[in-house]
Amino acid sequence: MMVPFHVLPDITGPTPVIDVDRVQDNIRGMADKARAAGVAFRPHFKTHQSRDIGRQFREAGVDAITVSSVAMAETFAADGWRDILIAFPFNLRELDRVNRMDPEIRLHLLVDHEHTIEALKTGLTRSVGCYLKIDSGYGRSGVRWDRPERIARMVLALNGPLSFTGFLTHAGHAYQAADSVEILRIVEKTCRRMSSLRACMTARDIRVPVVSIGNTPGCTLARRFPDVDEIRPGNFVFFDLMQWRLGVCEAKRLAFALVCPICGIYPERGELVVMGGAVHFSKEKLDLPDGPCYGMGIGMTTGGFGELQPDIRLVALSQEHGVVRAPESLLETVSIGDRLAFVPVHSCLTADLYPAYRTPDGGTVPRVNSVDLRGAAFRE
Amino acid sequence: MMVPFHVLPDITGPTPVIDVDRVQDNIRGMADKARAAGVAFRPHFKTHQSRDIGRQFREAGVDAITVSSVAMAETFAADGWRDILIAFPFNLRELDRVNRMDPEIRLHLLVDHEHTIEALKTGLTRSVGCYLKIDSGYGRSGVRWDRPERIARMVLALNGPLSFTGFLTHAGHAYQAADSVEILRIVEKTCRRMSSLRACMTARDIRVPVVSIGNTPGCTLARRFPDVDEIRPGNFVFFDLMQWRLGVCEAKRLAFALVCPICGIYPERGELVVMGGAVHFSKEKLDLPDGPCYGMGIGMTTGGFGELQPDIRLVALSQEHGVVRAPESLLETVSIGDRLAFVPVHSCLTADLYPAYRTPDGGTVPRVNSVDLRGAAFRE
Repeated sequence: MMVPFHVLPDITGPTPVIDVDRVQDNIRGMADKARAAGVAFRPHFKTHQSRDIGRQFREAGVDAITVSSVAMAETFAADGWRDILIAFPFNLRELDRVNRMDPEIRLHLLVDHEHTIEALKTGLTRSVGCYLKIDSGYGRSGVRWDRPERIARMVLALNGPLSFTGFLTHAGHAYQAADSVEILRIVEKTCRRMSSLRACMTARDIRVPVVSIGNTPGCTLARRFPDVDEIRPGNFVFFDLMQWRLGVCEAKRLAFALVCPICGIYPERGELVVMGGAVHFSKEKLDLPDGPCYGMGIGMTTGGFGELQPDIRLVALSQEHGVVRAPESLLETVSIGDRLAFVPVHSCLTADLYPAYRTPDGGTVPRVNSVDLRGAAFRE
Repeated sequence: MMVPFHVLPDITGPTPVIDVDRVQDNIRGMADKARAAGVAFRPHFKTHQSRDIGRQFREAGVDAITVSSVAMAETFAADGWRDILIAFPFNLRELDRVNRMDPEIRLHLLVDHEHTIEALKTGLTRSVGCYLKIDSGYGRSGVRWDRPERIARMVLALNGPLSFTGFLTHAGHAYQAADSVEILRIVEKTCRRMSSLRACMTARDIRVPVVSIGNTPGCTLARRFPDVDEIRPGNFVFFDLMQWRLGVCEAKRLAFALVCPICGIYPERGELVVMGGAVHFSKEKLDLPDGPCYGMGIGMTTGGFGELQPDIRLVALSQEHGVVRAPESLLETVSIGDRLAFVPVHSCLTADLYPAYRTPDGGTVPRVNSVDLRGAAFRE
């Protein structure tokens, strides 16, 4: 169950690898789903952050995208994307940066405070669309869905350089769901609450052009999104252990893994040590019935990924070390210097720690990452 | 308790800031401690990863250092360090890279497998010192301290390009200790086990030049290290919430914080949202009696850091959002666009996500980070 010697023989340390066929299937699957459900598809690009993978979305008919920072918007604007939503409660300290973006780009910001709206009206030198962030039950950000008075006042305040794009919500509590049944219940409740909010606006003669919902668990599992106009999932492009564990995806849709060299073999305690720690995986953890899990083994050939190996498991991470519990059959066959591939718990966080992906056949797919994007601020 | 407007007015997003006086005090304190205890001081540079901060160590009399990767060794070798230990079970896939390093540098590798030793003897084109990694109770890597036969065989195998530097252990279980009393008990036990192992070697006519122990909790709290020759703490340069919570340091020694802009204020639930999520802090968490904690507020002026604010607390992190629980007195006084400073749970992981530190008086202190160091591999 090692990564064979002829797969990526050149790599020396922890290396992110994607299965391009699975990525392709995941993209097409979600694009088809959106079409069948009659909703617009504005995928979130924060997971892959790759212009190349972005182009695969374009080939699947996508022309509007979601990102989570101004820097990410700049990256994809530079690759020809012309309709971009920055889905983070707008950070007023980046106002100048937004003003510097190409005015030809249809840019949408996310707002949920009167103060932000007023500051934008004063400070913007370009026009932008505004999604009003609605808290439909997650409780992280947004105006609560059951405050139609306040919401109506905020919509009416969107004028001057601001236009009202619609309502946006993110049911992040789907990640705390016990199983797929609960996720579907959350989707249904989200759609119902947003629909009722839209009805409240209609009663006030306010037209809501777009109701937009997010998140991979709900968008993957549901078939219908009643009274919703747009979906914004992101993680589905790679999926990960968290999604697999929630019952959102089958193991054969897992499209992202980290290949790590073995640096220690300890048969007496049934463990290996790989170069692959918190700085390589992130410390996102699954609490499984038999203990913590930071990653799970997966097969790999030059043709792509193989089977998920739930018995090969990252059970502890230090800064650079990963401790792997593995069956005797594996411990007896590996040597120091061999490589193992692991699916991470949360692919968005792991992928964000690298400047590129490799493919099992030896290719390289560049991406941006938060560290590089931030680096620009220090160099300015 | 906000970061005042005149402190770092130019920053727009999450920004790592160090208190240079505290860093200085932390460095001098540990150097003095080592001198008083009669042990060599080989600080671990994985926490700060900054040439500038490295020079402060040099001024404190340090001439030998510890790093955790070949890339980090190259970085500090390029800044004139001439005695460098790479304290990670050697990754044989980086053999060529070690061969390319300046032969004038006294380089030490860490080994705990016969296979690694033989492969080094075959593949090295330069001489290196070897520390034998001993597992004195942590159970992550190393040969168990109570296997003197195997250890003696491995020491005797260190010949040709390899010389025996000594025994190295890392009592990482100190981080799971309940309090400072338990940490001191772990230090004492570690020293006793290493001393007994050395006696076993002496009985076999094997001289052990150096016994080296690591970790900030033990090295900060203990005053004596019986029969130990060298200490390798790293985190103490900044400390963090984990160390503070363990009783290892007082709040006034916390030297690293992340300044984050406020993007949402939700008085109805007693919370704020800052731009500052898992990609800015890492997902390292403290489980406090009243819930999870990913960071705690701290005061800041142009002169340096102020008081720790345990009632301002990061209670949840998404990819880019941080949810902050804060007292009414703060919620009533802040506006969108104000900044708050937070001490992270694990400074090593948070700092590693940035290309530089800022200082409260406006300065910039460059550092390297894992993402940049890895980037080189993709560009090669």
